[in-house]
Parts: sequence; structure tokens; C-alpha cells
Amino acid sequence: MTALGRKTPPLLAISMGDPAGVGPEVILKAAAALANRRGAPSIALLGDLSAMRAAAARLSNVPAPFEWHRGQPPIRLTKGLGVLSMSSLSARAIRPGHPTIEGGGAAYDYIVTGARMAMSGEVDALVTAPISKDWMNRAGHRFPGHSELLAQLARTRLWRMMFAGGELTVALVTAHIGLAKVSSALTQRSVLDTIRLLFSHLRGALGVARPRIAVLGLNPHAGESGMFGGEEIRVIAPAIRRAQREGIDAYGPLAPDTAFIRRAGSFGFDAAVAMYHDQGLIALKSLEFDRAVNVTLGLPFVRTSPDHGTAFDIAGKGVANPSSMIAAIEYAWRAAASREKTGRRAAA
Amino acid sequence: MTALGRKTPPLLAISMGDPAGVGPEVILKAAAALANRRGAPSIALLGDLSAMRAAAARLSNVPAPFEWHRGQPPIRLTKGLGVLSMSSLSARAIRPGHPTIEGGGAAYDYIVTGARMAMSGEVDALVTAPISKDWMNRAGHRFPGHSELLAQLARTRLWRMMFAGGELTVALVTAHIGLAKVSSALTQRSVLDTIRLLFSHLRGALGVARPRIAVLGLNPHAGESGMFGGEEIRVIAPAIRRAQREGIDAYGPLAPDTAFIRRAGSFGFDAAVAMYHDQGLIALKSLEFDRAVNVTLGLPFVRTSPDHGTAFDIAGKGVANPSSMIAAIEYAWRAAASREKTGRRAAA
Repeated sequence: MTALGRKTPPLLAISMGDPAGVGPEVILKAAAALANRRGAPSIALLGDLSAMRAAAARLSNVPAPFEWHRGQPPIRLTKGLGVLSMSSLSARAIRPGHPTIEGGGAAYDYIVTGARMAMSGEVDALVTAPISKDWMNRAGHRFPGHSELLAQLARTRLWRMMFAGGELTVALVTAHIGLAKVSSALTQRSVLDTIRLLFSHLRGALGVARPRIAVLGLNPHAGESGMFGGEEIRVIAPAIRRAQREGIDAYGPLAPDTAFIRRAGSFGFDAAVAMYHDQGLIALKSLEFDRAVNVTLGLPFVRTSPDHGTAFDIAGKGVANPSSMIAAIEYAWRAAASREKTGRRAAA
Repeated sequence: MTALGRKTPPLLAISMGDPAGVGPEVILKAAAALANRRGAPSIALLGDLSAMRAAAARLSNVPAPFEWHRGQPPIRLTKGLGVLSMSSLSARAIRPGHPTIEGGGAAYDYIVTGARMAMSGEVDALVTAPISKDWMNRAGHRFPGHSELLAQLARTRLWRMMFAGGELTVALVTAHIGLAKVSSALTQRSVLDTIRLLFSHLRGALGVARPRIAVLGLNPHAGESGMFGGEEIRVIAPAIRRAQREGIDAYGPLAPDTAFIRRAGSFGFDAAVAMYHDQGLIALKSLEFDRAVNVTLGLPFVRTSPDHGTAFDIAGKGVANPSSMIAAIEYAWRAAASREKTGRRAAA
């Protein structure tokens, strides 16, 4: 049974993340918030049944976790939360706020299975709950984060981080490198690739027919005609022109500090391309922190995640805010629905 | 008659800016908005009487411009706008939207006089309307902008740009340089100097008894323990420690992308120190564009300006938004009042 053949509602895989983090809690709260929405997706939670049951026992009014096996019909959210139990973690490993190597290793396994299910079409998209890079590394899996692991599983080197809020969407040309290295990492190719990946995603996964893409400059005032740096002239503007020749409605380079001002209530673009991590994320997080969703562009499937970490300090206390997880699921749901509608596989 | 000897209300000098820009218009609209406020400052408009009269004739319900001379009692805003007429510009030079060398040269003169009046205590603060750097340069005055000119007039090399919105205040360690040069421009000294100047301003000009100052990192996640760059460890953290030893309540380095998130409605600090132009200004302009005020730290007087340019494209059409000019005047007014109250000269 493939995703293309399956009827709505969509089936989304969610990897549970670090068992000692806020993952189980925000997943349950998000499932509760979404259960009664019309056409709400079913969920295949890739994780640990005991961890999910323990988390559910600490909360009220959340769907009960039930064991679910691959090949079985999806469990509707109104009936409960389907858990594909992939581990039998010790009591120590599911203790909130106390990460373990055991938990870090299990979190890795959930992601790998989720990616494989998404690649085979067994699920329509993958949503990943927060992991601890540190504890995943200690368990012997040396990846800087989700994105790099998923890119390797999908055998792609061409991927980018994208962040979407309720109103603002930003893709990053560079991400986890020092600011001093950003200029030399920018090439016409790296900028153009980002524009292309963003364009494909907006069209394929979101169904935006003719996305308008704003491209930021690198320097103050976008370089002010080369006075404050030449990257706009040498690198960014030529990349924009190449994208335009390919029929992409891209424009810029824009002065970074005024690019994210709403004029008459709108940013004036569907999504923006930022040259470095904080250029995009200062705007996004300042304007819409709780709603931000992390999306990986360039994978052969849709992958989203909430824009927060494991938050070990508040795990298990019932106070974790599920807004970003809800937004991550909604985003994956919308992408799955768009794919269903257009009858083609979504580009991620 | 010195500022210290004068009774309230304060007297603020406003330089008219480029005669062909939106300066005259936003000054008149701001004067109208402030005229009936209790204790509103009087204004000494340093500019061109004909230009101001022409601008007033295009607007309704704005104070009438009257000629005013140094040494005369200030004209209250309820009676009209006092203009110290420093030029007799040609009709060509006061045509909105059509800048001239004549106008660029006059704009320079207004600033120089304003700075001298502020330094002598003849006025309590200086508010500068937008100039065109280009046209000022063409008139033979080669300065990158207001700040550099004012710093030279005040004979100081140690100054910084600061921006204040209604809620967010940010001082910049570096400003108009290419992003690739930021890392090498950061030193413990340049960061510490910025913290000190900001601290003095918050105490001296605004009367914040014990200002809390957030200091941002340079790199994504503030370097993540050196993984994405070492400036936080080598430069920024030591500068913060030195400031703390001087009794300044500074903390950081903070991850830049999450530093400007309001938690429980507050940023948690009185002002922030940003390492580069867009790090501070993306947050400030995204969150509070219309209200942002530009303040120069390190001058021997308070100097503010609206955070927009000459906007030649809309000058004379009556549509320019005076919010930022109003905020600039209010900020200078508050600083003047604070000085009056504490009985000492405000540090800028």
C-alpha cells in the first residue's frame, strides 16, 4: 500500500525524539489539539510505547497511546495515538530530564525508520521531535543534527534548512558555520541552489503556482553599491538573474534590515532566501517564535520538526508548549494534502 | 543662558535635513502631534524659512513657521514653529524630490550649527532630519553620514550607533562595514567600549538606575561552545566579564536568534549590544519599524534622528509618516527632562 494509493486522511510518521526530552509530551499535546480537526492526519509514532504511556499518564485529555504495527490500518487520532514501538527502554532511559546513551541511541533508530518509511511512501511525511545531538553522538552516531543524518539516509548532498512561521518562510544558504566563514561559503551556485530548492518546495509541497522569492543581500544596506562589501554584486545578483532566466520569480538582493518589515500587512513575498543562519532566524524567531517549523529542503520526502530543542530542564513537568509541534504537524499535513491534490509526489 | 539654568520646557534643536527630502514635512507633522502635550519642548528649527513655509503650505493643521533668532525666548509649539533661518535657498533647491548641491550644502550647515548649539548648552539636545549623504558629498562635505560628522565636530573617536524602538534598544559594536570584516573588527576593547557607552547613556540620559544589558554572540547559537566560531570565547565573554567587574549588569553572550524573543511580554533587558549592523537592526526594524529612533552614543550631547532616509520619491506629497520623527523628538525630550531632573549634564 503506497502513499499515492492511500485515501485521505494522510498518515504522518513522527519520530519520538530523545525519550528524556519534551518530545513525548509535545507530541501528545499536539495530537490532542489536532484530533478533532476535519481530515486530521493519522499518526505513526516511531518511538517507545512505555515512554509514551508514561508521558500520557502525566497529562490529562491526551489520546491514549496504542501499539500499532506496520501494515495495519492507521489508528485515527480520535481513537488514540498509534505507536510503532521500536524499543523497550529501561525505566532509567525514560526518566524526563535525565538523558542517557540508551535514549540517544534509540532516538537515532526512530529517525532512521521514519526516513525509510517516508522514502518508500509508507507514510506521507516525517515529523521529527527534538533529539540531543550530544547524546546521539555519545551513542556512537556522529551527526551534527537531524538534517545531516536525513541527507545521508537519502543520499543527497544538496539540501538546505528552511524555517516557516505562520506568515514568514525563510530558506538558508549557509547555516551552522561561523559568521567569519559565511562570505567565502557563498557562491553563485550555493545561492542559486537554495533559490531552486525553495522554489520546488513551494510549488511541489505547498502548491504555490508562482512563488515570489525575496533574496537578501549579505552586507548592511545590501552592500550600498559595493561600499560595504562586494558579495551582492559578484555573487548574489548574478544568482538571482540566473534564477529569473529559469522562470523563477526571484528578486533582490534586498537590504537585510528592512526585508522583513510588513508593509500594508504583508511581507510582499512567499518566502525569502537568507545568506546565513541568524539573518533569517533573528527575523523569524523575533516575529513568530512559537509557530516556527523547521523544514529540510532537498530530501525526497517532506520532513518538518518543531523549532525547539529537547528542553531537558522542563521535560516531564507538563509545561512544554506544543505550539511549534502542532505547527510542524500541520505543515506536514498541508504538504501531504497538496501532494494528494496535485497527484504527484511532493518535492521536499 | 545655559541649558542648566533654563526652566522647563526644554529647547530642542532640529536640523531640517535635505530641503528636497521629507524632513520639512515630517518635522511639521511631528510638531503638530506634539504641540498640545503637557510640557512639550520648544523647537529651534535650524533650516530654511522659505522651505518650511512652502512645506507648511502643502499641509493642513501644522504649526506655522516663524522666524526665530538665537537669544530670543523660545517659541512655544502651541504658538508656532521657531525657525532659525540659516539659508535663503533658491526655488529650485526647495522643490521636493529634486535634490541639489545647494541643498546638500545647506543641510550640512544646519547640522554643524545644531551640534555647536548643543555643545554650548544653548539647546538641550539635537534631533537631525534625514540628509542625503550623496548630495552632502557632492557639496564637498565628505562624511559617510551624520554620526561621523558629529563625532568630528565633537572631537571624539569613541562613538557608537544605537537604535531605540518603543520596547527594544540596541547598540552596535560595528556598523557600516562588510559582514566579512566584522569578525576582525571585534576586540575585547570594542565590545567593552560599546557596553560602557550604552551603560552611561541609559543611566545619564534616560535615568535608568541599574540598566540590564544583554550582549549578543557573533555566531549561530553563540558559537555552540566554539564549534561555530571562537569569538564568543576569545572576545565577547571576556569583555562581558570586564564590564561586570566595573559594576555593569551585563550578561551573555546570547544566541542571536533567540535573544529578541519576548518571554512573558518582556525582552528581559533594558538594552542589547549587537556585534554587527543587521544583527541588531533586523530585530529592531522587523519588530518596530515605524517607531525606531537612531541615537549616537559617545557625543557630549544627546543626538537623535528618525530611522529613515530622505525618501525623495514621496517628498512633498503629504504622505510621509512622521512616527519615527515623533519618536526621535520624544526620545530627545525624555533625555532632556532626565537631565533636568538629575541636575546634571546628560551623557549621550
